[in-house]
Amino acid sequence: MISVTEARARILAALAPTAAEIIPLIAGAGRVTAAPLMARHSNPRADVSAMDGYAVRSVDAASGARLRLIGAAPAGHPFAGRLEGGEAVRLFTGSVVPEGADAILIQENAQVFDGVVTVNEAPPAGRHIRRMGQDFRAGETLIAAGQRLNPRSIGLAAAGGHAWLSVHRRPRIVILSTGDEIALPGDPLPPGGVVSSNGPALASLVRVAGGEPVLLPTAVDDTAAIAAAADAARGAEMLLTTGGASVGDHDLVQAALAERGMVLDFWRIAMRPGKPLMHGRLHDVPMLGLPGNPVSALVCAILFLLPAIARLSGLSGDAPAAEPVRLGAPLPANDIREDYVRASLLTEVDGGWLAHPYATQDSGMISRLAQADALIIRPPFAPACAVGETVPAIRLSPLGV
Amino acid sequence: MISVTEARARILAALAPTAAEIIPLIAGAGRVTAAPLMARHSNPRADVSAMDGYAVRSVDAASGARLRLIGAAPAGHPFAGRLEGGEAVRLFTGSVVPEGADAILIQENAQVFDGVVTVNEAPPAGRHIRRMGQDFRAGETLIAAGQRLNPRSIGLAAAGGHAWLSVHRRPRIVILSTGDEIALPGDPLPPGGVVSSNGPALASLVRVAGGEPVLLPTAVDDTAAIAAAADAARGAEMLLTTGGASVGDHDLVQAALAERGMVLDFWRIAMRPGKPLMHGRLHDVPMLGLPGNPVSALVCAILFLLPAIARLSGLSGDAPAAEPVRLGAPLPANDIREDYVRASLLTEVDGGWLAHPYATQDSGMISRLAQADALIIRPPFAPACAVGETVPAIRLSPLGV
Repeated sequence: MISVTEARARILAALAPTAAEIIPLIAGAGRVTAAPLMARHSNPRADVSAMDGYAVRSVDAASGARLRLIGAAPAGHPFAGRLEGGEAVRLFTGSVVPEGADAILIQENAQVFDGVVTVNEAPPAGRHIRRMGQDFRAGETLIAAGQRLNPRSIGLAAAGGHAWLSVHRRPRIVILSTGDEIALPGDPLPPGGVVSSNGPALASLVRVAGGEPVLLPTAVDDTAAIAAAADAARGAEMLLTTGGASVGDHDLVQAALAERGMVLDFWRIAMRPGKPLMHGRLHDVPMLGLPGNPVSALVCAILFLLPAIARLSGLSGDAPAAEPVRLGAPLPANDIREDYVRASLLTEVDGGWLAHPYATQDSGMISRLAQADALIIRPPFAPACAVGETVPAIRLSPLGV
Repeated sequence: MISVTEARARILAALAPTAAEIIPLIAGAGRVTAAPLMARHSNPRADVSAMDGYAVRSVDAASGARLRLIGAAPAGHPFAGRLEGGEAVRLFTGSVVPEGADAILIQENAQVFDGVVTVNEAPPAGRHIRRMGQDFRAGETLIAAGQRLNPRSIGLAAAGGHAWLSVHRRPRIVILSTGDEIALPGDPLPPGGVVSSNGPALASLVRVAGGEPVLLPTAVDDTAAIAAAADAARGAEMLLTTGGASVGDHDLVQAALAERGMVLDFWRIAMRPGKPLMHGRLHDVPMLGLPGNPVSALVCAILFLLPAIARLSGLSGDAPAAEPVRLGAPLPANDIREDYVRASLLTEVDGGWLAHPYATQDSGMISRLAQADALIIRPPFAPACAVGETVPAIRLSPLGV
C-alpha cells in the first residue's frame, strides 16, 4: 500500500497537458490559457477624462476665470482641433482629452452660459485624467499561460483586443462502470441489482472540473466484455473505471486490462474510504481504477481525479486545499490508513468552521456523502482528537463537487 | 442614494424563480431542483454484504465449526434458496444476504477446502451486513426543492432511480451595451474608440452563475436605437444594460427606456465603485442598469447580478459571502459610500487570510480587478483601519468570478 500523497504524485507524473485549440472569447470562462495573452493596444489608448466636465489648460483656469467653449468631445468622437489659451472643450467620462489641455474642470465646479465656462474652483493639472496605458500598455502580458479564465479575465482579454483565445482542450475522460448488478437509472432493476450512480456522478464531476466525459455502456462481469469496452478509451486523455480494482473473484477489471497489455503502476493505497485504487496505462492512455463503492469512488475522484483533470487541462493539479476546522465531536485515534471523514460544517462567530463528523461513516451511505460539507483528513496514526481541537478538512462546495 | 443592502433587497423583491423543465440526470450539475426528489426504492434494496466472505447462521458459526458450501451469490445474482443449519453461501461485496443467514464470515477468517468452510473466528450476528434501507428508504426525500445540484447529489439522484430531473430553467439575461465609442473585440477601432469588455465579461458571468446570456448588438448613443434594442428583452427574465445609467448629456439609456414605458425604481446607490446603478421594469421584464465603467460594472454584477440570477434560478439569492481577513496595509476612513476595495490575498500560517488592498483603486483599471483575489467591504463612515485589523472581504474565486 502506498500513501495518498505518493499515489497522487504518481498519477500526476503520468499526465501531460492537452494540446491547444482556438475558442471564441465568450466561451472562455473556466478554460485554461495555452499561451500568454498580450495586449493588442494600450488601455486607455489615449489620455481620457475620468469625469464629466471640461478640458482646460490649468494655467488659464484659476478660480473665477472665464473660458470660451469651443466644442464638445463625446466618448467616441474626439475633438479634432487643439485647445488654445482661454479655451474649454466639453468632455464626458471616457472622452479623449484634446491636445493642448492638461486639466479637467469637473462640471460640478463650473458654470456655463452663452458659450462661456466660468471656473468656480481651479482644477489641479492632471487630476481626473486617465493616462494612456494606465491600465496596460500595448504588448504587455495580460494573462500568462496556464491560467484558469474567469469572467474578469474575459473582460481583460476583451479590453486587450482579443476575440479568440488559445486554450488547452478539455481532456476527454472515458468512464467505464462494470458489474452484472449495475442498471442505469430508470432502466429495469433485476433481482439483486443496484442503480449505477458512479457513472452519472463521475460524468458530472468530470464536466464540473472542465473535462469532457464519455460514459461507456456498463460492462458485465466478463473479462472479454471489459477488455473490449476499455479499447474505446484509445485516443482519450484518461480511462476511468469503477469497480473491480480489488482482487475478489468477481473483481475482473485488473485481469481484463492486464490481458489487454495494461502496465500496472499500483492498485492499493493506504486510505479510507477507497483502498483499492488502481493506476496504470493501457494503449498509452493513463488509467485510473476507482473502487466500485459509490462513496469510495467519489472520495477518490475528489482526491485524485480532480487534480488529474487540472493537470491535463494545463494547471499544476494541486491536492484539494485543506483548511483548519474546529472539531464539534471527538475523533478516535487512526490506524495505518489515511481517513477522509465525512462531516457537516457550521460557521463560527469568529468566521471559522466548526466540524461535526457523522457518527456513521459507512461507505455505503451515498446520502451522507451528498449531505457532507467537508472531508476531515485523518493522517495515518493520528492520535485521538477532543472536541475543540483543530484538524485539517477539505471543503467540498468550493471545489464545485 | 440608497444603501447596497436596500438596493439588493429591492432588486430581489422584483424577481420570481423561473418555471420548471425536465433535463437528463447527467446534465444536472449546477442546476437547481424545482421539486423534491423522492427515492423510487430503498438503498440497499435488500440486506447486502459489505465484505467478501460467506453468509452463515451465527448459531452455527462458532470458531472451528465446519459448514457446507451450498452455493455462491455474486453481486447481481442473488442465491435462490434458503440457508439452513450448517450451511454457508459464498458472497461478495454488494451480494444480497440469502434468507436464513444472519452473519457474514469474512474470507480472511475462513478456510475453504473441498466444499467445506472452516470458521477460524466466529462472526458476530449482523456485522458487515448493510441493512435494507440503511442509506435511504423508498419514498424518502433525497433532495429538497430549491437545492443546487452537484456531482454528489447527481449520484444520489441516480441511486434513487432518477434518469430525469425537474429543475428551474436557466434565466435568460439579455445584455445591452451602449455607446458610440464601443467596438467588439477584434473589430476595427475608430479614433477614441474602446473595446467592449463589459459585454463579454457579463455574458461569461451570467453563464458561470447558471444563466443563459443573450448578448445584443451594441446600441449607439441614440434614444431610438437604445429603445429598439431594449424591446429585444421581451420574454427574458432580465434586461441588463451597461452605460448610460447616470445623467450626463450622453447617458441616454434612462431617457430611452423611460420613453418606452420603463418604471424606474432607483438609479443611484451609495457605493464605490458603481454609484449609477439603475433598477426598474420594462415590458414586465426586470431591468438592471450597470455603470459603463468596466470595473464598476463587474463589481456591481458581483454584488447584485449574482444574487439576482440565483433568485431567478430558484435559490434565495443571498449577498456574496463575506469572511474576515487581516489587513496587510492600512485603510483610510471611509465617506458616505460603501467602498469595495480591490485586494490581493495571502494565506497566513494559521490558515487565515492576509489582505493587501491595491494602492491604486482607479475604477479604470480592468487589469487590477482581474488580478484581485477579494473585495474588502468598507461600510459608510468606517473609521481608518491599521495593519493587522480584521475587516470583512468577499473572496472572488469561490464565486466563480
